[in-house]
Amino acid sequence: MSKKICIALDAMGGDHGPAIVIAGAALALERHPNLTFAIYGKEQAVLPVLEQHPLVRERSTFLHTEVAVNMDDKPSVALRQGRWKSSMWKAIEAVKKGEAAACVSAGNTGALMAMAAFCLRTMAKIDRPALAALWPNVKGESVVLDVGASIGADAQHLVDLAVMGSSMARIVFDIEKASVGLLNVGVEEIKGVEEVKAAGRILREANLPGLAYAGYVEGDDIGKGKVDVVVTEGFSGNIALKTAEGTAKQIAEYLRAAMSRSFMSKIGYIFARGAFRALKEKMDPRRANGGVFLGLNGVVIKSHGGTDALGFAAAIDLAFDMVDHGLLEKISETLNAYHGQPDAGSLKPERAELPSP
Amino acid sequence: MSKKICIALDAMGGDHGPAIVIAGAALALERHPNLTFAIYGKEQAVLPVLEQHPLVRERSTFLHTEVAVNMDDKPSVALRQGRWKSSMWKAIEAVKKGEAAACVSAGNTGALMAMAAFCLRTMAKIDRPALAALWPNVKGESVVLDVGASIGADAQHLVDLAVMGSSMARIVFDIEKASVGLLNVGVEEIKGVEEVKAAGRILREANLPGLAYAGYVEGDDIGKGKVDVVVTEGFSGNIALKTAEGTAKQIAEYLRAAMSRSFMSKIGYIFARGAFRALKEKMDPRRANGGVFLGLNGVVIKSHGGTDALGFAAAIDLAFDMVDHGLLEKISETLNAYHGQPDAGSLKPERAELPSP
Repeated sequence: MSKKICIALDAMGGDHGPAIVIAGAALALERHPNLTFAIYGKEQAVLPVLEQHPLVRERSTFLHTEVAVNMDDKPSVALRQGRWKSSMWKAIEAVKKGEAAACVSAGNTGALMAMAAFCLRTMAKIDRPALAALWPNVKGESVVLDVGASIGADAQHLVDLAVMGSSMARIVFDIEKASVGLLNVGVEEIKGVEEVKAAGRILREANLPGLAYAGYVEGDDIGKGKVDVVVTEGFSGNIALKTAEGTAKQIAEYLRAAMSRSFMSKIGYIFARGAFRALKEKMDPRRANGGVFLGLNGVVIKSHGGTDALGFAAAIDLAFDMVDHGLLEKISETLNAYHGQPDAGSLKPERAELPSP
Repeated sequence: MSKKICIALDAMGGDHGPAIVIAGAALALERHPNLTFAIYGKEQAVLPVLEQHPLVRERSTFLHTEVAVNMDDKPSVALRQGRWKSSMWKAIEAVKKGEAAACVSAGNTGALMAMAAFCLRTMAKIDRPALAALWPNVKGESVVLDVGASIGADAQHLVDLAVMGSSMARIVFDIEKASVGLLNVGVEEIKGVEEVKAAGRILREANLPGLAYAGYVEGDDIGKGKVDVVVTEGFSGNIALKTAEGTAKQIAEYLRAAMSRSFMSKIGYIFARGAFRALKEKMDPRRANGGVFLGLNGVVIKSHGGTDALGFAAAIDLAFDMVDHGLLEKISETLNAYHGQPDAGSLKPERAELPSP
């Protein structure tokens, strides 16, 4: 049997808490029997659910935590109140201490990002972490980042995003080289996208391992699956993601209205029920559940807050793949090829050179 | 009969040129019998089509222009080669000269923007023009701007966008007061959206006539129709628009695949054909065709390049409404209420105060 991989779980995160977290762990365990879990949460909430999943209980350690981060806490409040002691913090800290290989939480995105960045710190040569989404397209899926971990990006940060995104894509899609596009607007020659242009020049010239730079892409190229990885700064990335979600819901609404408008269409619906089920499954956000925080000294996966056990299991699967295929090592290797420095684990040169305060 | 309104038409713009422009004019004329047209284009291309539409010919002036702007010309090239003499330039110039009340072109967006800005200049107190889109949502439509006229925006420009967008929305939706949301990301307390926050403070305090500030909206609120007007800077606006278009195509593709996957689903499709036709019509981009350039001393409408006569007619309708309901006056009034200066037509104070070079 292959080596054990321990995943730390924040049992209190998400809209449904331990019920879906533990049930999700049970599903993931069926697919990956070498998984173990470090579970953090309130014992009165978690232990009864663990009773129902004896296999998970057997393969887990559990630690009671008194504090749970609320879904609507501001990141600063969550950090002040939940640091050192919340289930979310403890799950992240398990990664820092090396007790777990990755952490999964369905909790408050901003809080998770703030705590993960505070606890794990960014990797050498990476200035800011990023949040990457798995985005369904007509061909399959692509990795889109940054979808909201930070706002604005200079050329260097866009290159870092390309490196991190391509490393993730190589694992998730099981490919040697990931094609990378920079998100841009179609109107040429307008001012203000200098950083995108500069990043494009760097990526073209650097010819990094595992990364095939494919030029600019536009918003409508994401759904076409034109590239494996779409790179943009966090403001526009977050807006693109939310806009696509909104458009999908809007069209589902149109479709529902259209199918119930007449007797004939209702009959048609009955005949085509299987087709609609397939469509619904295709559009099911649970299948591609989980954002990945990239650029930290550890693997941290954000599961959708409203997800069920199936979705949470998909997020655990993602964490498993990232660990099993060495996400952090892949990022470091590509960064080193770029910087020409083989000392992956050392301090960032620019940080080391800073005068002490 | 009400007063005549003359619209200048660039007959050479778009993928299909005069064929759809003149046919579109004929359709618009049926709805608005007081329209007249000033048509610009190559005589060998335009005159044969005008022969087929005697009513349009009767209600139009025509001027031969030797130069036509290509759909893929860079704006700088188009401006260099097409200024003073192209059909696009002549149509814009007719507005400047007061010979036409508005201009409609299905041509190259970047070129149209560059020429319109160069020829018409921005309105007093407006620094940069904007491109506004009519965006379908589950309740109807909303105005979204800027979708790509310029990149980046400080708080002042975002406020200008709110003023211009609400003026347009009041006309298109025939409402007294338009609700306005600022597009933002959901993650609170992250750096870099200071200009959005500052614009929000200004809009809340200014309490402008015809504009009800509704706070921040996120990408998924656009499709919900949460507000009449969604304001954002041009990079994220363009990406949101293109992403929504891409998502709509992607889902249409899924739907097509789902409906042809089995014998049963094909039968269902036959029964529900009327429903699918209604859905297709709902998603038809021609129905809401036409971006509006806002902030210029004149009404300039961009029709979709690939549109047909029906779509081009919708763009003419839009131009008609903007003129008939005094778009420029509405913008000026609101700007004056904001600046507290009743001298709408005067030079921008900040420009007047600049030392001469």
